[in-house]
Amino acid sequence: MAKTLEPKTKEMEFTSIGQRVPKLDAWDKVQGKTMYIHDVKLPRMLHGKILWSKYAHARIVSIDTSKAEQLPGVRAVITGYNTPEIRCGFIKDNPVLKKDKVRQYRDEVAAVAADTPEIAEEAIKLIDVVYEELPGVFDPEEAMQEGAPLIHEDKGSNVLKLPWKMICGDVEEGRKQADYIVEETYKLPFVTHCCLGTSGCIAQFDAKGNLTVYSPTQIRYLAQKDFQEALNALGLKGKKVKVIQTAIGGGFGSKLDTYPFEFITILLAYYTGRPVKLVYSREEEFFASPGRQPVRAKISQGCTKEGKLTFRDVEMILDNGAYTSWGATTPSVMMMPISSLYQVPNIRYVAKCVHTNNIYSTAMRGYGNPQATFAIESQLDTLAEKAGIDPWEFRMINRNKPGEITPQKFEVGSCGMKECLEAVKEKLQWDEKRGKGNGRGVGIASLIHVGGGARIYKSDGCGTILKLDDFGKVSLLTSASDMGQGSETVLAQIVAEELGLHVEDVDVIMKDTNLEIWDAGAHASRSTFVAGNSALYAARKAKEEILEFAATMLKEPKENLYLRDRMLYSRNNPEVSMTIDKLLRAAHFRTNGRQIVVSEFYDPPTQMLDREMKGNFSAAYTYGVHGVEVEVDKETGQIKILKMVIAMDVGRAINPMAVEGQLEGGGAMGLGYSLMEELHLEKGKVLNGNFLDYKIMTFPDMPPIESVIVETYDEKGPFGAKGIGEPPLVGSAPAIANAVWDALGVRIRELPITPEKIVAALEGKKGS
Amino acid sequence: MAKTLEPKTKEMEFTSIGQRVPKLDAWDKVQGKTMYIHDVKLPRMLHGKILWSKYAHARIVSIDTSKAEQLPGVRAVITGYNTPEIRCGFIKDNPVLKKDKVRQYRDEVAAVAADTPEIAEEAIKLIDVVYEELPGVFDPEEAMQEGAPLIHEDKGSNVLKLPWKMICGDVEEGRKQADYIVEETYKLPFVTHCCLGTSGCIAQFDAKGNLTVYSPTQIRYLAQKDFQEALNALGLKGKKVKVIQTAIGGGFGSKLDTYPFEFITILLAYYTGRPVKLVYSREEEFFASPGRQPVRAKISQGCTKEGKLTFRDVEMILDNGAYTSWGATTPSVMMMPISSLYQVPNIRYVAKCVHTNNIYSTAMRGYGNPQATFAIESQLDTLAEKAGIDPWEFRMINRNKPGEITPQKFEVGSCGMKECLEAVKEKLQWDEKRGKGNGRGVGIASLIHVGGGARIYKSDGCGTILKLDDFGKVSLLTSASDMGQGSETVLAQIVAEELGLHVEDVDVIMKDTNLEIWDAGAHASRSTFVAGNSALYAARKAKEEILEFAATMLKEPKENLYLRDRMLYSRNNPEVSMTIDKLLRAAHFRTNGRQIVVSEFYDPPTQMLDREMKGNFSAAYTYGVHGVEVEVDKETGQIKILKMVIAMDVGRAINPMAVEGQLEGGGAMGLGYSLMEELHLEKGKVLNGNFLDYKIMTFPDMPPIESVIVETYDEKGPFGAKGIGEPPLVGSAPAIANAVWDALGVRIRELPITPEKIVAALEGKKGS
Repeated sequence: MAKTLEPKTKEMEFTSIGQRVPKLDAWDKVQGKTMYIHDVKLPRMLHGKILWSKYAHARIVSIDTSKAEQLPGVRAVITGYNTPEIRCGFIKDNPVLKKDKVRQYRDEVAAVAADTPEIAEEAIKLIDVVYEELPGVFDPEEAMQEGAPLIHEDKGSNVLKLPWKMICGDVEEGRKQADYIVEETYKLPFVTHCCLGTSGCIAQFDAKGNLTVYSPTQIRYLAQKDFQEALNALGLKGKKVKVIQTAIGGGFGSKLDTYPFEFITILLAYYTGRPVKLVYSREEEFFASPGRQPVRAKISQGCTKEGKLTFRDVEMILDNGAYTSWGATTPSVMMMPISSLYQVPNIRYVAKCVHTNNIYSTAMRGYGNPQATFAIESQLDTLAEKAGIDPWEFRMINRNKPGEITPQKFEVGSCGMKECLEAVKEKLQWDEKRGKGNGRGVGIASLIHVGGGARIYKSDGCGTILKLDDFGKVSLLTSASDMGQGSETVLAQIVAEELGLHVEDVDVIMKDTNLEIWDAGAHASRSTFVAGNSALYAARKAKEEILEFAATMLKEPKENLYLRDRMLYSRNNPEVSMTIDKLLRAAHFRTNGRQIVVSEFYDPPTQMLDREMKGNFSAAYTYGVHGVEVEVDKETGQIKILKMVIAMDVGRAINPMAVEGQLEGGGAMGLGYSLMEELHLEKGKVLNGNFLDYKIMTFPDMPPIESVIVETYDEKGPFGAKGIGEPPLVGSAPAIANAVWDALGVRIRELPITPEKIVAALEGKKGS
Repeated sequence: MAKTLEPKTKEMEFTSIGQRVPKLDAWDKVQGKTMYIHDVKLPRMLHGKILWSKYAHARIVSIDTSKAEQLPGVRAVITGYNTPEIRCGFIKDNPVLKKDKVRQYRDEVAAVAADTPEIAEEAIKLIDVVYEELPGVFDPEEAMQEGAPLIHEDKGSNVLKLPWKMICGDVEEGRKQADYIVEETYKLPFVTHCCLGTSGCIAQFDAKGNLTVYSPTQIRYLAQKDFQEALNALGLKGKKVKVIQTAIGGGFGSKLDTYPFEFITILLAYYTGRPVKLVYSREEEFFASPGRQPVRAKISQGCTKEGKLTFRDVEMILDNGAYTSWGATTPSVMMMPISSLYQVPNIRYVAKCVHTNNIYSTAMRGYGNPQATFAIESQLDTLAEKAGIDPWEFRMINRNKPGEITPQKFEVGSCGMKECLEAVKEKLQWDEKRGKGNGRGVGIASLIHVGGGARIYKSDGCGTILKLDDFGKVSLLTSASDMGQGSETVLAQIVAEELGLHVEDVDVIMKDTNLEIWDAGAHASRSTFVAGNSALYAARKAKEEILEFAATMLKEPKENLYLRDRMLYSRNNPEVSMTIDKLLRAAHFRTNGRQIVVSEFYDPPTQMLDREMKGNFSAAYTYGVHGVEVEVDKETGQIKILKMVIAMDVGRAINPMAVEGQLEGGGAMGLGYSLMEELHLEKGKVLNGNFLDYKIMTFPDMPPIESVIVETYDEKGPFGAKGIGEPPLVGSAPAIANAVWDALGVRIRELPITPEKIVAALEGKKGS
């Protein structure tokens, strides 16, 4: 089927697709020419700073800003008391400046704009806030108990009213059919994105009250919509908002929502009449930029003697923190592996998001999938063991297959799960290495992820404008966002391929809500698929126009003509040969001539999840398998990753080097999540908010990662491609946990898998 | 005919067209927020400076840059000897850095890039150039003589080989038919644009060799093409050039070409690897930015006893200066009034452009038309007097009429010359005031100008991309350029009108060759007509899409639907009523939905002039009449302008306030040209290159100007409009000269009409 996308003749051999094209933004990045938000300076720009809460939970008795206001160089001091109320977040429960009460250490109590960052910092210290401390609650299970302090009194409960429940088939029936059942609880920690570019923005009003926000956001169109609320609050309804995206120094989901600091910057710009920049320090980035939500998952799965899964039953509690950002919506994605990773006929899933006085979470690469997959895939090994089946065989028995429809009504198109399992088995020398139990072990874990967008909003579309100039160069205005993942390069490859041009002929423009058509943002691993199809279909339209003109001009049937390598050729007439730039000039410089410009809006053929949380919410699904070989020191619990294999079905690798970058980058992030990352909170306060105390993978820590690219040519994807941004992180932790089990016979059910936990587990094992 | 464009029903009454909309850029300009090239700062930016020639004509014996190179903070010193040759200008006779020889004081001998402007200036002084002075020639007639110094030895002659000759009918036959003939010589001076924003640019290479130039150019696409030459010279053929237009602080034609300073800045950026900014000082702007070319015109015209013109015979000599920019092509526009101002059956025109060691000229508002019209319209009064016919009557007899085809084959569509003549007659109280001869007098002069573009290039087109967002706002990406004339506002009005939106809903984006479609530049008074039609047709396409969607959604016939005041209505069904933003969201957020984006490329239906210099090179023609009342002091020759009336047939005033702005601004510039402006050169050297010694009109100098807008609704123009940028300048000088004649009986045939010249003429009159 999709194999027909493969080139059939010399003329159809790809020149850009499948090439190892270095990232187009690499040159400027290594030369320091990339303009991050930190580098942007506007004339007369002021600097903003936020005063954070001193308590996890307290009443605000009074705020005295008079000393700060008197400091020379201070241009505005704002609080919740002298500004209109603006609320942000998924359910708008987060006032951007807090009044009456603080609910977390991240609460914004006041803010200052001043001539320099130093003056702003000084001014913040001069603000006197009198608090009356309140009892706090820092554990979601405690927060659910009768009599627990209420984070939002008006809500009447700490448990959010969210529709996170899914039933497929009949779990009780599945339990009955099972010969083996395992029930366990898994625990996932609070981790954070650690973007090297800290959060920040610049807000500026023009003389007519229109707002421009410079921001390294992943969602410039949804942010544009959110920022309208600030205008409404300021009595500027109907004025325009423009979001200009600066280079993103890492996103990973942290920049997928709008946050109080952005609205505060807008308010400061409004009240000073000058551009205001507010950028987080590294310390602020650690405690004030939301991370991945902590999860407790109670999971049980069962199988028949033959190893066929009969049910999966999952209950989760998520620590929602004090307010509600995207973290609270991750159960919508956790449903995906729970319902559709392996063929499982009977499924139940319930999740509760519970307010605490901890800092709140947001989206992070994988968006809940790593947490759910850790529980599922760790437990699968236990269940396989119980059933006496090799874990690899067990996965083969239950694997997903091309064309199936899963219990959640996902329409699986291409599916390379089998190929991925086989590749990892071979690369890991599974049969030789498994089950030795001598302190060395191998483990694997599979994953499913959306690979064709994810309809989380009414539109999952992306727009493209293609403009060809007189020099054979293309402006590709795309609403996609490149946060380092390489979209710019991939989109240039797609357009260059389709138009017979070279990658360097394409200028990819992705920066300004006023220039590019709408897009749902960089998330759900959707850019290659959605923006890629949008660019591809635009390029096809442009090609059609070019060939039509050429056919008329050269009196050669259009069907015979093709574009390749900056040239127009005819299949039948060797005398037809013309450079594309010359052809474009001929199209322009004639009577009724024109430059060729086309636009395209591509919204994938998908559905929003219905009330039962079912529907085909992605146009394609990406599958992958992680394999790990570990060596664990039984005395110290030190884990050494000897090898990591990541096999991913990417549909088509438009740029194998970029795919490898994602596999290795996701692998590295997954290793960090598995082995060392955890933001430690004590009564809501971050204890290790710096790179000395919060450990992430560094170059010396990195094991060899072997990337295996499996190509299944998805027929809906651009040149067959599927999304691959998030998956390479997802299966890391269970693969490691499974390898540790293979090495030592201990099961670690709580991330990160630290030496302390291994030692404790070994001691527990001895004890039992 | 075109009157059918008038609104017929309430629903069709205009909401934006015809409104006095303040210029959209006014707010930012008065608040100092507009970013001129002077305001743009890039990280690590260096500052460039040029070493100008010390002589009008000399051999370069040697250039020693060693001392300059050793000055700390100097990053590059370039000359014609250490850089590849790049030539610029209309016939590429101007090497951007001079070698072997200098030919004018404006010659660029060396240039420096340094950390600060001060260091660059210091470094320039450290460059030792040894010259060997050559004899110069500073008068074009002397330059034509045998044995005159040759400016370009390789050309063999100082007279340029240009095709400036036009014959219509038979001038000798016309002479025979004439009862009265007048033959005279007129002389026009060197004047300059006096842009308040001096010339300048910033050049920057990215890490891959692609070039970005920030420039307040009027021709960003032709500049983009020109700058490719720099890349070719540097071995970077095939790399991309992007021109980003910064706010233009006045253009008037001075920024219609590319000049050596821009290529020098590019070279400095290339050799330093850093962005380089080069901005002229005011003194440099006066001598180094080319102005309007000096002209000597020998003209004879004849008429019958009844006052019908029988022929017009014009010979011109233009001082071309040392190199060739657009000044040398102004005869192509001078042909227009010579052939087509009034009905003249027999015409001959010959022009010679002659090299001298003076500084060269370029385009300037009117582009030759003011010089030619001064001669024609001054002489017309003399001829009318000779024939004993009132000059106003004389003009009515010979006036142009709608629908006529002129001898140069211009297809006149709308023509309000009669209405303009009548309006000026009335406003000036012509019958009461004419012919009193008591030191007060009235004078008039007509004009023709292109009003529908001018096909001076293979394409006279302009592109538009229109993008409508979810908030009912429009991004209008237009390749037009606003240099103060108000195009931004006019285009927003056109789009707002067509889409039933408000002007403030439209964001006009005109800045970057990579974003907007091609355009021929801001010249020939073409923006309202060409960019206006482009925007209008784009808006019509968008409207069509909106109404089609609305018709389907509301099940209401499309023909019944219309957009007005941010609402959709039905003509027949009062229950149909919906805000446009809601409608756009409905179009977006549906299955297979999309945001509405359209593009348009409009190239007017015109012809390039043929070998005989004939053809309909504009799609519409603008007519106008200047009327002036003067009072002249017979003792001192001081002229006081009591009143100036400017009546212009603009087709349709899309923005009457903006039209008045053009009429008053053009009138002011015309008054300066008529009464005071002249760049004095002594052996090629500018003597009065500053605002103390070079006089332009200031507020206290301004007489009352009465603007009369005549609307003829040209059927090809957007909503009936024609171009009006240049015409209000054109007839000023002859109207004043004619009024002076009426006041004193002396004829001043040389601009500016200074008190000295009047006193001298009065003395000559007494003497004769």
